[in-house]
Amino acid sequence: MVSRIGKEVELSPVELASQTAKKVEINLASGTPDPKVMPIKEIKEAYNEVIEEYGSKVLFYPGAGGQEELINEIKNYLPLLGLSEGKDKIIVTSGAQHAIELLSKYFLENDTIAVENPTFIETFMAMKLRSNVVLPISLDSNGIVVDELENLLKIINIKFLYVIPNCHNPAGVNLCEERRKRLVELAELHDFYILEDDPYRPIAGDVPKPIKYFDKFGRVIYISSFSKIIAPGLRVGFILANEEIAEKISLIEQLDFSTSTINQYVVSRLLRKGIVKERMNYLYNHYSNKMKILIESLQDVGFTDFNKPSCGFFLLLDLKKDSWKVFLEAVKMGLSFVPAKPFFLRGGDTMARLSISVASEEDIKKGVRILKSAWNNI
Amino acid sequence: MVSRIGKEVELSPVELASQTAKKVEINLASGTPDPKVMPIKEIKEAYNEVIEEYGSKVLFYPGAGGQEELINEIKNYLPLLGLSEGKDKIIVTSGAQHAIELLSKYFLENDTIAVENPTFIETFMAMKLRSNVVLPISLDSNGIVVDELENLLKIINIKFLYVIPNCHNPAGVNLCEERRKRLVELAELHDFYILEDDPYRPIAGDVPKPIKYFDKFGRVIYISSFSKIIAPGLRVGFILANEEIAEKISLIEQLDFSTSTINQYVVSRLLRKGIVKERMNYLYNHYSNKMKILIESLQDVGFTDFNKPSCGFFLLLDLKKDSWKVFLEAVKMGLSFVPAKPFFLRGGDTMARLSISVASEEDIKKGVRILKSAWNNI
Repeated sequence: MVSRIGKEVELSPVELASQTAKKVEINLASGTPDPKVMPIKEIKEAYNEVIEEYGSKVLFYPGAGGQEELINEIKNYLPLLGLSEGKDKIIVTSGAQHAIELLSKYFLENDTIAVENPTFIETFMAMKLRSNVVLPISLDSNGIVVDELENLLKIINIKFLYVIPNCHNPAGVNLCEERRKRLVELAELHDFYILEDDPYRPIAGDVPKPIKYFDKFGRVIYISSFSKIIAPGLRVGFILANEEIAEKISLIEQLDFSTSTINQYVVSRLLRKGIVKERMNYLYNHYSNKMKILIESLQDVGFTDFNKPSCGFFLLLDLKKDSWKVFLEAVKMGLSFVPAKPFFLRGGDTMARLSISVASEEDIKKGVRILKSAWNNI
Repeated sequence: MVSRIGKEVELSPVELASQTAKKVEINLASGTPDPKVMPIKEIKEAYNEVIEEYGSKVLFYPGAGGQEELINEIKNYLPLLGLSEGKDKIIVTSGAQHAIELLSKYFLENDTIAVENPTFIETFMAMKLRSNVVLPISLDSNGIVVDELENLLKIINIKFLYVIPNCHNPAGVNLCEERRKRLVELAELHDFYILEDDPYRPIAGDVPKPIKYFDKFGRVIYISSFSKIIAPGLRVGFILANEEIAEKISLIEQLDFSTSTINQYVVSRLLRKGIVKERMNYLYNHYSNKMKILIESLQDVGFTDFNKPSCGFFLLLDLKKDSWKVFLEAVKMGLSFVPAKPFFLRGGDTMARLSISVASEEDIKKGVRILKSAWNNI
């Protein structure tokens, strides 16, 4: 007998689809940032510079909570995300996934939580394995349906709400400003926290201020990542939370001590040199142009049941047929995407997550044609 | 209310002493490898080489369980540790600390475990926070007292035994070969696992074969790290375990996805170039020479109550006086060490952990003189 986590953990369906995607010609499955726009040269320079400048200091054990150099750079970076440190504190993590694992470890022990339906399955796993009850709250084109949450809160207490406010994975929607404000009010009224997972904001273009921006009571825990704006292979992200929670998370980090010291210096250097800032608009354009092509291509072949994402990597398409069957047919024809049912706590059987992140314009167009053919065959 | 981990986690006393150590002249507290012998130039070259050779591939999300390139190099490296892959499987982790966090997550849910008394407090934290009962098993100059464990196993079942077989932290002892064999037999007889935490082996010189070497039944989970032989700031280590456990740990790794892809390529490169192998003997000599100076210095001033470590960073000295009081006096005089009581589940009030890892020969000699003066003042 092992722990509940040991018993219940399973292979992520995204990982599974990614493995399939490697074997086929056209990849509309992967959520990895586009390698064609990774700042490889700048990253290489940054490694050389931090080793030359700091020597062995960048190779020591990481300090609890993150390297001071990086924390200072993140303070300067926060305004670009519409935030400031204020009374809160920054904790460096090994990306957003690690941040959510740390927060789940801190908060959860067979509790009740609420998540969007659908939600991002990989981060959700860390919460699900430690929760007793998970309330799925519907999404519409303006993000999480706050009325639905409010009605549930009249009859049930939750420990936290997990929400992806921008360029939602897998739904592609942005949460409107009015709902952001209402979420903060609800959190204070009903004594819960909001985990605001916002890895796409640096490449999201013009979106409303973070939920955290409206937070007067320390109820919002903001999670960010450098995976989209720099590269995921460095494994660096951060949490902005009230001091009490931040202190505890920094202690819990001692249990894994997993955030590479040198990579923190590299991210710090790229922030200092303005490379992160420079890339924000560039990457927004890069990805939103590809998204426009996906939207047009889908419309051209007669697929219309989807929201039109303004940013990010993902579009959620209702195929109106079993998406798993369409997936199996599409793979045979050289296309991979992610059948989206695993992202849903209820429903989702006919939903497909299409990603534009690594695909070229030509791939997107060709992929949609294959999708239509596969769909016709089912 | 938060989780048990959230409630019970606390600042590691090693971290506390390390912070003190930064403020005083002589540091016999820190367990960090000696920056003077870190292969900085080789690491810098490796970053350049892997970025030039592989490009964006080294900057993608890490694959579950570790990058294939590194796993292959570790397979070739295992014989240098006295091991082979056999029917087992390698899982790459963010260092040994992360490995133990993953294994604790997998195995423990209010269970009974056994550890050495004393044990390494930082790795132990991950286990303690998920255990109900922890059995402390005495150490002597030949390592864990297996007779004591055997007597306890007659009346109580354990989930696993955690053991540091070489250059023990904080005790400085090595486990003798006969006891290693007996531990494997006991594990099979009494249905428990052995977590063999062996980060010092690459720099341990001539020590017995790993416990894992004697393991016929998949009962031993071997944990290794590149922190001592390369540098801790990369956060790369690995687990060698039977296939079932290895598969599960690779799934649990999805929850934090924290092991930097590029750093895995860098370690892989350093292994391939033979730099790890070259350094084994060099670092053994570097550290054991400093250890000899510590031993002689202690004897010169009349301290005799300690085992004589043959390897590693740590010597455990019985001051025969309250070591916390001696510590406070020593800090005033410019010396830091770690009062070792927190490493003990029972006893340890008069014990001091002295580390030679970052101190120079002169520092060690001077530090011991300060220690004696502080001791005289108590």
